[in-house]
Amino acid sequence: MAGSELTNIKSPRVKAARRLAKRAFRDRDRSFLAEGPQAVREALALEGVVAELFTTAEAELRHADILFAATHAGVPVFRVSGEVMSELAQTVTPQGLLAVCRFLHVPLEQAVTAGSRLVAVLAHVRDPGNAGTVLRSADAAGADSVVFTDASVDPYNGKCVRASAGSLFHLPVTVGTPAAQAVARLKESGLRVLAADGAGERTLDDVDLSGPTAWIFGNEAWGLPPELLRLADEVVKVPIYGRAESLNLATAAAVCLYASARSQRAGSESGPAPRLP
Amino acid sequence: MAGSELTNIKSPRVKAARRLAKRAFRDRDRSFLAEGPQAVREALALEGVVAELFTTAEAELRHADILFAATHAGVPVFRVSGEVMSELAQTVTPQGLLAVCRFLHVPLEQAVTAGSRLVAVLAHVRDPGNAGTVLRSADAAGADSVVFTDASVDPYNGKCVRASAGSLFHLPVTVGTPAAQAVARLKESGLRVLAADGAGERTLDDVDLSGPTAWIFGNEAWGLPPELLRLADEVVKVPIYGRAESLNLATAAAVCLYASARSQRAGSESGPAPRLP
Repeated sequence: MAGSELTNIKSPRVKAARRLAKRAFRDRDRSFLAEGPQAVREALALEGVVAELFTTAEAELRHADILFAATHAGVPVFRVSGEVMSELAQTVTPQGLLAVCRFLHVPLEQAVTAGSRLVAVLAHVRDPGNAGTVLRSADAAGADSVVFTDASVDPYNGKCVRASAGSLFHLPVTVGTPAAQAVARLKESGLRVLAADGAGERTLDDVDLSGPTAWIFGNEAWGLPPELLRLADEVVKVPIYGRAESLNLATAAAVCLYASARSQRAGSESGPAPRLP
Repeated sequence: MAGSELTNIKSPRVKAARRLAKRAFRDRDRSFLAEGPQAVREALALEGVVAELFTTAEAELRHADILFAATHAGVPVFRVSGEVMSELAQTVTPQGLLAVCRFLHVPLEQAVTAGSRLVAVLAHVRDPGNAGTVLRSADAAGADSVVFTDASVDPYNGKCVRASAGSLFHLPVTVGTPAAQAVARLKESGLRVLAADGAGERTLDDVDLSGPTAWIFGNEAWGLPPELLRLADEVVKVPIYGRAESLNLATAAAVCLYASARSQRAGSESGPAPRLP
């Protein structure tokens, strides 16, 4: 643990961490920021991910377990003043813990294999909060991995990391994958590729989801581009039973991923749900 | 249509509309703001809801249909400068259309009846974006109504109205309903009251959702208070198949509401999903 406290927001160490709020610096340093006890705890559970940890004196007392784990893992810990933490943290109420983490994404070939049963592909998802929420839902639904295409937001964006609520550290993710390449790999690996889009002819309730499945989720406003819809094995929509025009992207993704999880677990004999007359 | 343009942000009419961003003024005037073409169009589809409409010259050209509908309905239309619209609108990129709408919530007795099949109850939901997203999902899942309890955020909050994407205008909502009173009314009306909470012993996949059901959703951080869990017929959790600690509130609500919609439509013979060994 650091003996003295960093109080200067202009110290090189603080500046180096702070600029990771910007993608260009994250890509250059191959590092990103994770804030708060939950994310830091999850990051520390992975070997070699946390490069350094910034804490406030108060947070050290409150989260002794995290400090112990960091010290035990040989992670350099820097105590900073409240002012420096406010400068580093991207949240309004920083919780006194902020880790500089090394990139942890994996190659597509590692994220998608013949053993994959459920994969979420974020294509053209632009809002980092939505992307993080989909990552969290994919984790909850037991997905094997999440593919971020080159047209989607950076999963290391601070808002995405926070919205993922630790899930970024739970399952393999890819970054910057061309969508066509992802679809080819998914198909080669034996997964059925479903594009979630309101343009779908069949609904979630009418397709058999019991086999290995990949879901492609598109843009918040305009969905998926035609060329990606064509690449998919099928375009499937979430049924709208009421008068809403559509669902929010992250909620639609959760409904799709859970429908898959449920079908896969119920066994292949259940098949699609009975159709209404 | 207004002949001249309001350019003074201090004009009494502009000030009166602008203060509706605050709940105290909304409650006093029994009015709220709806921004953007989608919300304004939905509001105009309901008789007597829109009290006045503010537009920019540009938006009038782009959305002639809306202007026509407003004029036809006898709604006073005031053309304002871009500066005044920026002052009125709560979004960074106002779309040039803003309606002052009259409160449209209904009494509990009207929202929940013996004919209700699916009802969402927002208890202790504090984030307006989440509340609006749940309202949108409830609408999409074909819910009959949404109950906002007195411990939840105001559905007329601008962020909630926007996140609902028009759904606030689609189905009956109640506001400020005491939770115990809502549960009593739901039970009297023949609905099974399920509390969605990680404390549940059974998961969504293990309960029969084919009958009339009400779902209670709690706080983003801490869920539902014990007294409300006790009032419910059953506490049900969304199964977590992966390593996520929980789901985001709005995504969990969508998964629950769609599970109900699916079961109700599949018919009562389907019963709960087969259990895994």
